[in-house]
Amino acid sequence: MAFNFELKHTDKNCGARLGKMITAHGVIDTPVFMPVGTRAVVKIMAPDELKKIGAQMVLSNTYHLYLRPGHELIKEAGGLHKFMNWDGPILTDSGGFQVFSLGKTFKVADEGVHFKSIIDGSAHFLTPEMAIEIQNDLGADIIMVLDECSPYPAERKQIEEAVERTLQWAKRCKKIHYVKEQALFGIVQGGIYKDLRKHSVQSTVEIDFPGYGIGGFSVGEPHDIMFEILKNTISCLPEDKPRYLMGVGNPTSILEAIGLGIDMFDCVLPTRIARNGTIFTSTGKLNIKNSTYAKDFDPLDSNCNCYACQNFSRAYLRHLFKVGEILALRLLTWHNLYFLFNLIDESRKAIANDSFLDFKKSFIKRYTAEDFE
Amino acid sequence: MAFNFELKHTDKNCGARLGKMITAHGVIDTPVFMPVGTRAVVKIMAPDELKKIGAQMVLSNTYHLYLRPGHELIKEAGGLHKFMNWDGPILTDSGGFQVFSLGKTFKVADEGVHFKSIIDGSAHFLTPEMAIEIQNDLGADIIMVLDECSPYPAERKQIEEAVERTLQWAKRCKKIHYVKEQALFGIVQGGIYKDLRKHSVQSTVEIDFPGYGIGGFSVGEPHDIMFEILKNTISCLPEDKPRYLMGVGNPTSILEAIGLGIDMFDCVLPTRIARNGTIFTSTGKLNIKNSTYAKDFDPLDSNCNCYACQNFSRAYLRHLFKVGEILALRLLTWHNLYFLFNLIDESRKAIANDSFLDFKKSFIKRYTAEDFE
Repeated sequence: MAFNFELKHTDKNCGARLGKMITAHGVIDTPVFMPVGTRAVVKIMAPDELKKIGAQMVLSNTYHLYLRPGHELIKEAGGLHKFMNWDGPILTDSGGFQVFSLGKTFKVADEGVHFKSIIDGSAHFLTPEMAIEIQNDLGADIIMVLDECSPYPAERKQIEEAVERTLQWAKRCKKIHYVKEQALFGIVQGGIYKDLRKHSVQSTVEIDFPGYGIGGFSVGEPHDIMFEILKNTISCLPEDKPRYLMGVGNPTSILEAIGLGIDMFDCVLPTRIARNGTIFTSTGKLNIKNSTYAKDFDPLDSNCNCYACQNFSRAYLRHLFKVGEILALRLLTWHNLYFLFNLIDESRKAIANDSFLDFKKSFIKRYTAEDFE
Repeated sequence: MAFNFELKHTDKNCGARLGKMITAHGVIDTPVFMPVGTRAVVKIMAPDELKKIGAQMVLSNTYHLYLRPGHELIKEAGGLHKFMNWDGPILTDSGGFQVFSLGKTFKVADEGVHFKSIIDGSAHFLTPEMAIEIQNDLGADIIMVLDECSPYPAERKQIEEAVERTLQWAKRCKKIHYVKEQALFGIVQGGIYKDLRKHSVQSTVEIDFPGYGIGGFSVGEPHDIMFEILKNTISCLPEDKPRYLMGVGNPTSILEAIGLGIDMFDCVLPTRIARNGTIFTSTGKLNIKNSTYAKDFDPLDSNCNCYACQNFSRAYLRHLFKVGEILALRLLTWHNLYFLFNLIDESRKAIANDSFLDFKKSFIKRYTAEDFE
């Protein structure tokens, strides 16, 4: 199937929208949240479980797979879908974000970026062309151009250069990519500078991609600034193409961004905080390690229908967590993902009824601002 | 339901037998292998998965649960079945084995045993009466008397004392135990001394229990000595009561013991070696860390129908294991348990056909002696 995006409906009272994204491995309802399968696995979860709890699509990291086990091995295995036994759609990033965020030893040039492996310190050189070739080997349904991600805060001049380099790299990526089953998305940068964002969007859209990632957010900038810039950025993007806010995954930010017209999300947050004992509930966040829950025989969230909530008490999960039993991490991960998939399902229903703003408001008031800083 | 054991059939050519064990939480086909849920969880596995792969009954450790989260809390939760959400039969040990094997700081007296917690070094005193009261709170279907386990090798005098003390403790346990839904099993000791074993069996049987554990094996003694003593011990046990060989769990030893007339097994071995990368297969043991499997796209065991073998390659599982992904441990644990439950299912079929000896022989020849030392 050739990649396609159909915009089905936009909420009458805000930018929130419903769409269908057709990929080589199935059709996705948007907005969609993609759980992160860094090393070809969404941590602790089996693929059939992900399906069961509502995952439509997963993201995997080119940087990690390139280093271990290597894209050649995954190609030999028949591609990433077969290797990890996930027959639904997959998106891979370009490796750029990890190069710029994980290693402190990268050196960027027009040709590409030099970096040292976080595994063994070995030297590598990643070009836009290589990023595409590696992603061709992995075989995801949506792949991303190599972009330069700037930190926050950063000098305007640095951001300017990153925007220009990202544009040049985007052209080179598009030029070398030929696998029709894989949709190549462009990426918008520009930090917190409205004019740079606008320039980045307009020039990237000129190159013409079937979808657009919005990068460079959730790197430490204040939330209100992020949403202001994001609103501005979205206003310059074409209506008929999917918009993917990269790396944002806390429930309140997801709802805010859906309200502005974002269609796709990914983030390690829901799974990472679960492994630290923190879960989302219908009445706010809680950490299962808290002694309050030692003799609490209620479920994690009485309003939740997930496997963890239907079968186990807070007291049991706290016990498992405190003694270091992996089943605790499994069940908390399960719950957080279920919670988020369910929240986005409910969001889609609200958008269909043009009531997304009310839905968003009633959810967000249950959380404090600090809950998701 | 009151506890009961029905001997259904004994293989015409050896001691192997089929039975039904009726417990307060369901009926068990014997021979049975009980996976170990040390801290109220069979490591990494969810209870519905255990059922799916064929677990009939689980074992949990009184020592660990007494220390964390405490038997009072589990009682308050409604008992161990409810706490861990396992509605099938459960067996708890008395805590004795862990006191004598985990801590090096125990001191045994006729009244009970002083020991220090492996968690925080705190001092505790466990009496036969307490072992029963704790197990009453936990609420397992089968509970065990407190016994004194001797190490191997040990002086004959030490074993003699342990046998006598275990007999005295067994009487005290029986005296205080009153919960009808819980069947209290006696335990036979005696090390590798045939006459002490015989004395232990005869005196324990005289006290009269609905089933008998055989303790003190798999503590370092050579396999051939264990089986010789075991054969002798079994010959003194009543035919109409279940015989439980405590702590033995490698497939070859299980088959040998089934051939001698053992009905019940438990051991951490299958799950523990899985977490170290080692699995059982129909053609022998393998360790997934081995570089041989880096590009091996076959399943762990081509003859296995488990979830891991039906869905993932050795190359993928090796990748997960090498990068430290928990899903590897889950899938290897799943496979080893499935393999063992299946082996015992097949054993039951062979016994029903009076062909257990052939079945055992054809399995054991695929493994080398060192595989399970």
